[in-house]
Amino acid sequence: MRDAFHDELDAIGQSLVGMANLVIGAMDDATTALLIPDLALAEKVIAADDAIDHLQHELDARTIDLMARQQPVASDLRTLVTSLRMSADLERMGDMAHHIAKQARIRYPNRSVPDELVKTIEEMGRVSHKIIDKLALVMESRDLNRAVEIAIDDDEMDKLHRELIAVILDDNWKHGAEVAIDMTLLGRYYERCCDHAVSISRRVYFLVTGEYQSEQS
Amino acid sequence: MRDAFHDELDAIGQSLVGMANLVIGAMDDATTALLIPDLALAEKVIAADDAIDHLQHELDARTIDLMARQQPVASDLRTLVTSLRMSADLERMGDMAHHIAKQARIRYPNRSVPDELVKTIEEMGRVSHKIIDKLALVMESRDLNRAVEIAIDDDEMDKLHRELIAVILDDNWKHGAEVAIDMTLLGRYYERCCDHAVSISRRVYFLVTGEYQSEQS
Repeated sequence: MRDAFHDELDAIGQSLVGMANLVIGAMDDATTALLIPDLALAEKVIAADDAIDHLQHELDARTIDLMARQQPVASDLRTLVTSLRMSADLERMGDMAHHIAKQARIRYPNRSVPDELVKTIEEMGRVSHKIIDKLALVMESRDLNRAVEIAIDDDEMDKLHRELIAVILDDNWKHGAEVAIDMTLLGRYYERCCDHAVSISRRVYFLVTGEYQSEQS
Repeated sequence: MRDAFHDELDAIGQSLVGMANLVIGAMDDATTALLIPDLALAEKVIAADDAIDHLQHELDARTIDLMARQQPVASDLRTLVTSLRMSADLERMGDMAHHIAKQARIRYPNRSVPDELVKTIEEMGRVSHKIIDKLALVMESRDLNRAVEIAIDDDEMDKLHRELIAVILDDNWKHGAEVAIDMTLLGRYYERCCDHAVSISRRVYFLVTGEYQSEQS
């Protein structure tokens, strides 16, 4: 009976990794849709967000059902509760891809990102990819070194975010308030997406060690 | 034994209501600190956010402990899982007050909000208060009519948010990009705070009825 339980627990873990992989795809596509700009791809990301939401509902139902049937205690219970939280974080990360794609769609056929910010947004997309990819690995392997690395990688995102704001604030900014608003929100979507990834990596750290990862690392 | 369990369940519910009341205070103070502007009050909100975070950790530990000891099934399990989610939403709402207070602090002794937006921000503060106050009542009473009302009240917030963006985009906007960024983020903080309140009210609806509230209401 315990083995069947741990098989189910593993299956839930695998579904969470699957969700993380969907989020990587959604974020990659959202960045591409934004920068080309590509309306069909933006629509694809927007539609795919329903799939991520659905996966979360289904996964949470399985997790709660497993709790009810198997009555886990101690570390098994902690793992299941943490699964519920991770699925919520992953769902929010999917929402960020959705928000980015919606900006691509609303500005189409124009590109919302002005020339001087294309490189910064590309970098934000690249750093997001790196962080979520590492997160999927951490979720699968429970590699604590990599879990700690994610918080450090996130500093790169914060740096890019500061650069983005500096460009908007520069005296040479000539794109007006609408583009400034778009870019402010865009920066926040990428930043928030990676914040959720950091928060999941901290949850993994806590699950493995029983201790909270220090804020410095 | 079951009675002791339900007493503990009630106590957790009461703590969640207590968290909601702390969030009301934090949002009210954050709006006041922003509009006066009042540095000491901003610092108070920033410090109080640690108390909300601490309350969440303590509440979640109690919830998980209760799960482990009492092995609830069916609706009791659902209530406990939902408590974990509500505490996460409330913690995020507290973060929004924290973000608002940080904007008040970073711009002090200036007021970050320009004259023509003071009324809109006051209104956003008022609508937030109304929504979170009603939320605390819904959490306490499980009144479904009021739960449904919260989603409708949130339309007011969305309307104010659109007005805010329209002011920033107006040709008469003369405050430059920095204030445009501040106001864009500020609008999002109020909006997100109320989105979390809507999400909690939907969780209450689901707990009571076993059905998801329609998106229209």
